[in-house]
Amino acid sequence: MPGALWIVGLGPGGAEDRTGRATTAVRDADAVVGYGPYVDQCADLLSDAQLVERSTMGREEDRAARAVELAGEGRRVALVSSGDTGIFGMAALALRAAAAVPEAQRPAVEVVPGVTAGTAAAALLGAPLGDFATVSLSDVLVPWEQVEARLSALAATDLALTLYNPRSRTRTWQLDRVRELLLEHRDPETSVALATDVGRPDQDVALSTLASFDADAVAMRTVVLVAGPTAERVGPWLVTARGR
Amino acid sequence: MPGALWIVGLGPGGAEDRTGRATTAVRDADAVVGYGPYVDQCADLLSDAQLVERSTMGREEDRAARAVELAGEGRRVALVSSGDTGIFGMAALALRAAAAVPEAQRPAVEVVPGVTAGTAAAALLGAPLGDFATVSLSDVLVPWEQVEARLSALAATDLALTLYNPRSRTRTWQLDRVRELLLEHRDPETSVALATDVGRPDQDVALSTLASFDADAVAMRTVVLVAGPTAERVGPWLVTARGR
Repeated sequence: MPGALWIVGLGPGGAEDRTGRATTAVRDADAVVGYGPYVDQCADLLSDAQLVERSTMGREEDRAARAVELAGEGRRVALVSSGDTGIFGMAALALRAAAAVPEAQRPAVEVVPGVTAGTAAAALLGAPLGDFATVSLSDVLVPWEQVEARLSALAATDLALTLYNPRSRTRTWQLDRVRELLLEHRDPETSVALATDVGRPDQDVALSTLASFDADAVAMRTVVLVAGPTAERVGPWLVTARGR
Repeated sequence: MPGALWIVGLGPGGAEDRTGRATTAVRDADAVVGYGPYVDQCADLLSDAQLVERSTMGREEDRAARAVELAGEGRRVALVSSGDTGIFGMAALALRAAAAVPEAQRPAVEVVPGVTAGTAAAALLGAPLGDFATVSLSDVLVPWEQVEARLSALAATDLALTLYNPRSRTRTWQLDRVRELLLEHRDPETSVALATDVGRPDQDVALSTLASFDADAVAMRTVVLVAGPTAERVGPWLVTARGR
């Protein structure tokens, strides 16, 4: 008899930013599957009775297939991601793997949303987002030209931006290119925040400007938040104009 | 001595989608302030020992001022919003009110992020978001022309959209105008979901297309999700292409 698969977003980092539904799913699971650091993120919920499978980076398809396989064997499986699993997380891959299973053998599947890193970073700064866009800078799965096209179009709008996957060991120049694209339309003094490891003990938030932020200070786990044109410093906070 | 102010996002609806931090903030508060239905949303956390102030719609500035006032009197105050308080919630107004208090008298302030309705709706559908934009259709605080300009620019991109505040008693024609703007660039068969009261007992998700969705079935509490061009039906789910 097929089991169950929870595709879980654990929130940005700390246990306190996890939802009750995510906590229950991981605790009730017979098997927990995920990229190692994300399994670590819910270590407080794991027990010796659970099968725990940690995998390495870049093995997303294997991870999705394995979670579906375990659920097909009758287990109750939690496949964990950081943040919201539907925002550059494991949900799309895992659902495709589950859909490939004939319906009669398909496990029950539930996607458990979480707090995404971009809005958690925004909360640390104050309330810098009005209307906003969420874009991944990774060109692992799409041509870089497509990423550029999105950012060029967004640069000409007044939307704030939360940029994910801004840099990797091999992708080091893209963020400077993004700065150039944005500067074609936006004020050099636009507030830009680099939020790294949000919700984790080594959390770091650096507030700077579009012209002067340090692209070399950005890690893969950084979210780059570009404020909209109406955002301003209000006391110690960065706050958007209401309604804009 | 000044107290504390937590500006809390309660998540989309049900208690299970609340974070631990939001739960703790409301439970530890001496005073809870919010729009009536949002206070109801955390009724399971309230006690007789707390001062609970429910307010009516459209009184956002009063609510923000009152929360800051109570915190200034030394209380520990939770100002609650649905979803993420930084996404068209109370955070910007409340921080402005707090910043107006001289620093020595200013309460400690913490913004507590939550799961926003758009990604919770996405999770109910599957994984329809890749890169995406979050836009409010309300023209209460900005001219409608500005809202149109954003949507026209976004229509020409391949971003998915989560549209908030799509309709009110007095704003009934805007969503049809949005459809027109999107159809200038996007396929009429683009998947559109209307997600109403996400996470609440009367939750309703209707999947349709850009050409044919029923704008009259949309309520103020509906999130309209417009999938990107690569999203497709995969088994029972709506799933974006990986990386797109």
